Amino acid sequence: MNYRPVLAILGIILVFVGLFMIFPILFSIYYGEDDLHALVLSMIITLTVGAALWGLFRKHRDIRIRESYAIVTFSWVVAAGFGALPFVISGYIPSYTNAFFETMSGFTTTGASILADIERLPHGLLFWRSLTHWLGGMGIIVLSLAILPLLGIGGMQLFKAEIPGPVAEKLTPRIQQTAKMLWIVYALISLAETVLLLAGGMSLFEALCHTFGTMATGGFSPKNSSIAYYDSAFIQYVIIFFMVVAGSNFALHYHALKGNFKVYWQNEEFRFYVGIMSVFVVLLTLDNLFTIYPHLWLSLRHSMFQVVSITTTTGFVTADYEKWSSTAQFILLFLMFIGGSAGSTGGSIKILRVMILLKQGYAEVRHLLHPRAVIPVRINRRVVPPNVIINVLGFTFLYISIFVAASIVMTLLDLDLITAFASVAATLGNIGPGLGLVGPTDHYAHIPTIGKWILSFCMLAGRLEIYTVVVLFTREFWKK
Amino acid sequence: MNYRPVLAILGIILVFVGLFMIFPILFSIYYGEDDLHALVLSMIITLTVGAALWGLFRKHRDIRIRESYAIVTFSWVVAAGFGALPFVISGYIPSYTNAFFETMSGFTTTGASILADIERLPHGLLFWRSLTHWLGGMGIIVLSLAILPLLGIGGMQLFKAEIPGPVAEKLTPRIQQTAKMLWIVYALISLAETVLLLAGGMSLFEALCHTFGTMATGGFSPKNSSIAYYDSAFIQYVIIFFMVVAGSNFALHYHALKGNFKVYWQNEEFRFYVGIMSVFVVLLTLDNLFTIYPHLWLSLRHSMFQVVSITTTTGFVTADYEKWSSTAQFILLFLMFIGGSAGSTGGSIKILRVMILLKQGYAEVRHLLHPRAVIPVRINRRVVPPNVIINVLGFTFLYISIFVAASIVMTLLDLDLITAFASVAATLGNIGPGLGLVGPTDHYAHIPTIGKWILSFCMLAGRLEIYTVVVLFTREFWKK
Repeated sequence: MNYRPVLAILGIILVFVGLFMIFPILFSIYYGEDDLHALVLSMIITLTVGAALWGLFRKHRDIRIRESYAIVTFSWVVAAGFGALPFVISGYIPSYTNAFFETMSGFTTTGASILADIERLPHGLLFWRSLTHWLGGMGIIVLSLAILPLLGIGGMQLFKAEIPGPVAEKLTPRIQQTAKMLWIVYALISLAETVLLLAGGMSLFEALCHTFGTMATGGFSPKNSSIAYYDSAFIQYVIIFFMVVAGSNFALHYHALKGNFKVYWQNEEFRFYVGIMSVFVVLLTLDNLFTIYPHLWLSLRHSMFQVVSITTTTGFVTADYEKWSSTAQFILLFLMFIGGSAGSTGGSIKILRVMILLKQGYAEVRHLLHPRAVIPVRINRRVVPPNVIINVLGFTFLYISIFVAASIVMTLLDLDLITAFASVAATLGNIGPGLGLVGPTDHYAHIPTIGKWILSFCMLAGRLEIYTVVVLFTREFWKK
Repeated sequence: MNYRPVLAILGIILVFVGLFMIFPILFSIYYGEDDLHALVLSMIITLTVGAALWGLFRKHRDIRIRESYAIVTFSWVVAAGFGALPFVISGYIPSYTNAFFETMSGFTTTGASILADIERLPHGLLFWRSLTHWLGGMGIIVLSLAILPLLGIGGMQLFKAEIPGPVAEKLTPRIQQTAKMLWIVYALISLAETVLLLAGGMSLFEALCHTFGTMATGGFSPKNSSIAYYDSAFIQYVIIFFMVVAGSNFALHYHALKGNFKVYWQNEEFRFYVGIMSVFVVLLTLDNLFTIYPHLWLSLRHSMFQVVSITTTTGFVTADYEKWSSTAQFILLFLMFIGGSAGSTGGSIKILRVMILLKQGYAEVRHLLHPRAVIPVRINRRVVPPNVIINVLGFTFLYISIFVAASIVMTLLDLDLITAFASVAATLGNIGPGLGLVGPTDHYAHIPTIGKWILSFCMLAGRLEIYTVVVLFTREFWKK
């Protein structure tokens, strides 16, 4: 591994992060609150370090496969590391562990928070907190649609053909072109949601923060009670709609914006994604109608909101689902392992992989009856090659292994089984709220320090498709 | 599917089950208790139905692949169905659901019991209960080492080369030869354990019952407090030793009995099996030393007993592990998904598959660094072909899917999450005791009727390597 070009790119990432700090600064000035100095100071530090790294190492451009893994992983680490500064310097989150957890949760679009009282924070810091989601989401779209397919991670190579525009073949400069197109799509859809939320009665600040939380499938809200604060069916349905959009493959949105709306229903993953959510919305609506909500429409709205929020790995809430039946809770826990579409800002195992697993399982059963037949698995009418299937199965196994290992360590910190399970499931899947002591009305502040670092690792590993992070733990990776 | 030859073979199975009822009858006569008439009547019914089926259909011998799946699955179903009769007829377990659950638990070597007070039952019935374990274990050894490899289920084809004696190529008559050899091994080791337990101070009745529970990795004990009843380090270590033996591939024991003891350490699965148990014994011994047991040797003995009992999927207990730390409980829950060696009487996912999953996961990570290299997975120095890897991964995914689906249904019956999870994990993995309301000091009587049938299905599906049972649910299977 050649660390010099890695440091150069990390410098660019830091400059990028630092520049975006201008927006919370503007909000801080507008609201005239006491977070201004901390934001300005953080911006200066971040820009300085970023520029210094770039200046020192910019001549080194020898980026090969190992360096790209290091760049991807450490981009998120340094973004969270410096992004945490405003919280620490302002004194609103004095512990660096907590601030790092919160910022990693932001950039990985997880939305798990250590804040017991979110509304105590000034607007500038809250805006920064939500903006980390949006930036992280932007990073993920490019990563999952333009970079990972080239690295062949966990079945992502399947998308090669789905990337809008010319198929990317070399790391640069085609990536830049693809990235630009995807970012325009991301920004346009974000704009649409912001306008609708403004129309629903939110202030510009609230509309932007919630748009960032939605489009990144993040889930940070500037309100303590999340979306339950807005007792408006309009606002809640707007957010449901855009969560579904954010959990879909952005390549589809690109084609739709160019006028081709048929791509959605032609896409098998999208059909499955909408189908699985519909099934569970119906189930939970009925279950909740019998147990907690007296009216059909109320039950439908809250059931739909929670199912969509968790499946897309957003983590906004309109209801305390821990008061729902244990079946409903189990279904939500189960959905935490499904996740959004590949090529979306959603996390977890992802619809595409779940589809491949299901189809492969069915193919195996059919194979038992026809031992000599070759039974191929198809996605979008194309045969999925065996190496991709092994890739996807390997990914899922690794995902579950990390889930189990991290859960064991969490129980060592004297957390009960449900909290241990759910905290790992909710961070590894980049969802945010879990069950038990990290449920929808709780927060992560009480998790012991070691636990917060482990969960931060889970957020990172989950966000970067596991392999990208795990590969750094092999001895081979660091060999000269 | 041609049902006639299936019914003929099921007739033989019933005759076999009926004949073995003579042993509990002998114990009933010896102890002079009130279960004699029920046992005799059950024997007559079972033998009559069996003989009738055989008589009616014995001319039909057209057994092909579909028929073999049906024979395997329904053998266990009819054995449990008729094996339950003595409990119902005697009135000691008046509900047929409960009696079926108990007998299915016996024949699948699970050991989950609906009896709140085991010792209330007469000796004849208790002996029959334990004998179902031993017969089920006998069936499983033949199934996993002689029949499943030929059907190519879930990676089992890997053993083709490990079957002692001539490699089986056609379903009969080589199977008979292999079966005979394995049964001799099974009987000889059972004899050895019985002698040692007698030496430890057990009565012949107790020694036999516990031998059956051990060798089948079943876990039924005629004592309410299971092995905790015997506060003897000797007895507990003897049972630990034979649980390890029962959880190993019986093909290895065959070679060992022929004088070749090196096979154990030459076998990669056996090394991994002993290794993984050793690691967790050390961890739990330390953990329990800090939390519950004041002395090292006490902590070692109880930790070792529970780790071995759960890993081998036996389910005997010497300690109420729900009083252990949540880490210890999580580790035991995790071990429920590992299971014994392939070709043993142990259940669950199994060591061999876990090894293939781990090696494949590591190969994937290495592949990221060397995208063009072919990185094969080897077991016992032989390359595992890709179709076997897909097979194993598919099996594991199907196993986890059934676990999740059954757990959701269990939560619908108003069970808490832990009880729902653990009851399914403990029955699907053929372990017996779980956590929560089905913990080591509890029983399954309070599970609602529907739940008992679902768990009975889990025991069957887990025992028969999932595929054998799942294939019966495809429309294709039943087509003419």
